[in-house]
Amino acid sequence: MAVSTSTGLLIMETSKNKVFVLFGGTGDLAYRKLFPALYNLNVRGCLPDDYQIIGIGRRDYTAEEYIEIIRTWVQQFSRLEYTEEGFDALARKIRYLQMDMKDVMAYERLGEFYEELGISDNIIYYYAVSPELFRYITKGLTVIHKRNEDNKVIVEKPFGKNLEDAGKLNRELEDFFRCENIYRIDHYLGKEMLMNIMTIRFHNTIFKGIWNKDFIDNIQINAFETVGVGSRAGYYDQSGATKDMVQNHLLQILTIIAMEEPTDNTADAVHKAQERVLDSFRPVQSGEILNYMVKGRYRGYTEEENVAPDSKTETYAALKFFVENERWTGVPFYIRTGKKMGKRESEVRIQFKGDNPDEANVLLIRIQPAEGIVLKLFIKKPGTTQEIVKVSMDYWQSDVLENIMNTPEAYERLIQACRVSEKGLFTEWEQIQKSWSFVNKMVALYAEEGGDVHEYEPGSYGPLEANRILAPGSRWIVEDQT
Amino acid sequence: MAVSTSTGLLIMETSKNKVFVLFGGTGDLAYRKLFPALYNLNVRGCLPDDYQIIGIGRRDYTAEEYIEIIRTWVQQFSRLEYTEEGFDALARKIRYLQMDMKDVMAYERLGEFYEELGISDNIIYYYAVSPELFRYITKGLTVIHKRNEDNKVIVEKPFGKNLEDAGKLNRELEDFFRCENIYRIDHYLGKEMLMNIMTIRFHNTIFKGIWNKDFIDNIQINAFETVGVGSRAGYYDQSGATKDMVQNHLLQILTIIAMEEPTDNTADAVHKAQERVLDSFRPVQSGEILNYMVKGRYRGYTEEENVAPDSKTETYAALKFFVENERWTGVPFYIRTGKKMGKRESEVRIQFKGDNPDEANVLLIRIQPAEGIVLKLFIKKPGTTQEIVKVSMDYWQSDVLENIMNTPEAYERLIQACRVSEKGLFTEWEQIQKSWSFVNKMVALYAEEGGDVHEYEPGSYGPLEANRILAPGSRWIVEDQT
Repeated sequence: MAVSTSTGLLIMETSKNKVFVLFGGTGDLAYRKLFPALYNLNVRGCLPDDYQIIGIGRRDYTAEEYIEIIRTWVQQFSRLEYTEEGFDALARKIRYLQMDMKDVMAYERLGEFYEELGISDNIIYYYAVSPELFRYITKGLTVIHKRNEDNKVIVEKPFGKNLEDAGKLNRELEDFFRCENIYRIDHYLGKEMLMNIMTIRFHNTIFKGIWNKDFIDNIQINAFETVGVGSRAGYYDQSGATKDMVQNHLLQILTIIAMEEPTDNTADAVHKAQERVLDSFRPVQSGEILNYMVKGRYRGYTEEENVAPDSKTETYAALKFFVENERWTGVPFYIRTGKKMGKRESEVRIQFKGDNPDEANVLLIRIQPAEGIVLKLFIKKPGTTQEIVKVSMDYWQSDVLENIMNTPEAYERLIQACRVSEKGLFTEWEQIQKSWSFVNKMVALYAEEGGDVHEYEPGSYGPLEANRILAPGSRWIVEDQT
Repeated sequence: MAVSTSTGLLIMETSKNKVFVLFGGTGDLAYRKLFPALYNLNVRGCLPDDYQIIGIGRRDYTAEEYIEIIRTWVQQFSRLEYTEEGFDALARKIRYLQMDMKDVMAYERLGEFYEELGISDNIIYYYAVSPELFRYITKGLTVIHKRNEDNKVIVEKPFGKNLEDAGKLNRELEDFFRCENIYRIDHYLGKEMLMNIMTIRFHNTIFKGIWNKDFIDNIQINAFETVGVGSRAGYYDQSGATKDMVQNHLLQILTIIAMEEPTDNTADAVHKAQERVLDSFRPVQSGEILNYMVKGRYRGYTEEENVAPDSKTETYAALKFFVENERWTGVPFYIRTGKKMGKRESEVRIQFKGDNPDEANVLLIRIQPAEGIVLKLFIKKPGTTQEIVKVSMDYWQSDVLENIMNTPEAYERLIQACRVSEKGLFTEWEQIQKSWSFVNKMVALYAEEGGDVHEYEPGSYGPLEANRILAPGSRWIVEDQT
């Protein structure tokens, strides 16, 4: 069946999708995120009565055992209240199939299982497994499905060790699934406030006229965590802050902040607008990378469990980008991300022009931990004085509209979006490829041109060396000081 | 001594001004406003030890009696706490002179009184009397002072029954006092938030780019009172809402909202910028006044004491103005003012463009009763819905900076401004004359073209007929609905 973004077809398509097949059904992601999300969707009435969820794993569980395990996780992680009745309604939809995902014969059995259950196509496959298994699964599914049949696949990204590897995996997916049926997750896109950035930008006339180089001095995107690498050390040490955060999540945010208004509301138009930003990045010339990038590592990182003692992996990265187009030429976009920082926050800070940063407006778009917007304005201080003071006008999502607990978690939203073929929350390969390749070049130059990994104190705001990428006149916007 | 706006000269001048002479020293204005203001200024240390205040009235009081009367008023109306010690410090500066202001010989006695007290010039004269007396006083002062000597005069406006009369009074003042020494009070200018409008407009880059016809749909200036004419009925019935509020106060606000950025911070530059707005008003053509003006009168007005039973005076006026220049062509500016309205408020409401008014940003600049700014923004409603909701970001002066009680009242500010030759709070004759003559033409056309005075219910928002001046697409911004 043709999938389209036109509303009529969306409804047709939605009504046909009734199966969710989860590779990695006994993994951490499934238990902590996906089943709680499915539980919530089911409670909310988003899954039809005859919906089927098939968990696939290597372990030898009966369906009953599997359901009891899921129950304990849902009890613990569901955002909506756990009830026996609610869970039983979900449990009736859950099947379990034990299989070795590398074994081609196992896919025969999966096909037979489908037959028993009356399933043919219009399945959502969720690859909640290590990327090494992606190709086995995709190949295995050819036993059951014809190429370009209307099944969807959800994968997490980055889905390869490097760009080349990811490209190969992607080609394999695209050889089997229709392009429009591949849903690549970037979790940041599931966040309320990021989706809200588009609303803030395009539904407020007052921002339209000033969202450009004439009024904006610089833009800062921060993603700071207070935790260290913890249990993810093994993975993280192979990856580092740049690959883990910048090339995917933070460039997503940057492109949404910087893009031209999409020609329409479709995911395709939004993705195209984002891609054009990536195409407009000013390439970093040789000899100048140290003005564009700084890596850092918190003190004590190499003593963490599962981290190589001679590791050169960065737990902090600060980067600068210029978007060379009519709207943005000359405006630096800064990205900073790090672990064991002094504060947990994801935030976009827009510094407007002024005689100096102290006398200029600032717009903060807060993504985590609280979601909100803050506008720093200047007014005259009451009294006979002519003194001008900076004040804050703010709005918090959780303050007024609904308790934050009512906000669906990212996975709930993502699964539902996939069901209704809404691709706005997902990313397209072109975009991944372009972000990754741009950042790769910066990383390579950094290594070539002697960039260090600078140590910083846990609980600080990263290495002082980050200041070297600041353009003349720019400075980090410290919220408490604005 | 030459008065100038340059800072150096300001300081010299300030140090010389040590006498405040109050004609109408036993009147309501003196007791309720001026003496409490002088008390507060003195408590705040703004008046030097050797400062002298001379109250002049027709009544035969001793200085002691006069001071005791003032004491009771200060106790009642001072915004700062009344203390014996504080009042005694003021009382030591107060003298009283009984005189008939129409009697030329009385000015001889005033001159002698000055001699006794060691006073020559650098006096601030305050004409807190009926405008009919202005010419007697000004002529009388020629007995004591030479023309163009460095004395200042504070007068309240409107200071004539009609424009011709006011022009005549003004010429007499200008014949005697230097132009720059004439301080014409418009009380609205003493209000914090009105001064703040300039700060909001010119110290916030984010507003600079959108303060024009490309982004603003229309601007509404409201001054609503819940009270009726009360004890002012005698005066009011000769005047009406248009003359009482529009031609002075509300056109002051309008011109500050609409003006180009003044070339510098001086009062002169600001006044020039305001005047240019008045010069750019699109003249109302004959035959179209009913689309530009509506008069109203609250039910029961003609039964009020001191109101003529056949009165045609309006207690409500709604007017529309267009400023024909590059910034504003096509943007309607609405002014509405009335008595016995449903709400007390003075507010500027800026409606930005949007697909329709419900989906457009609004900026509210509140002047009374509370002072603040409110910005209506659009954000996405939390949850999976794509619904967009309008939310408020607001800032209130009294919330954060200081208790509102610390804000000097208008007269305190005005007297102090006059002392330091700061003319920004006062209006110039050119501006008065231009506003008045523009509004006069509208009033005349309204009478000629059969405009009625439409009755409205006390407690309402004025006559429904006001809607007829709304431009296509405009509507009144009702704050509760935005």
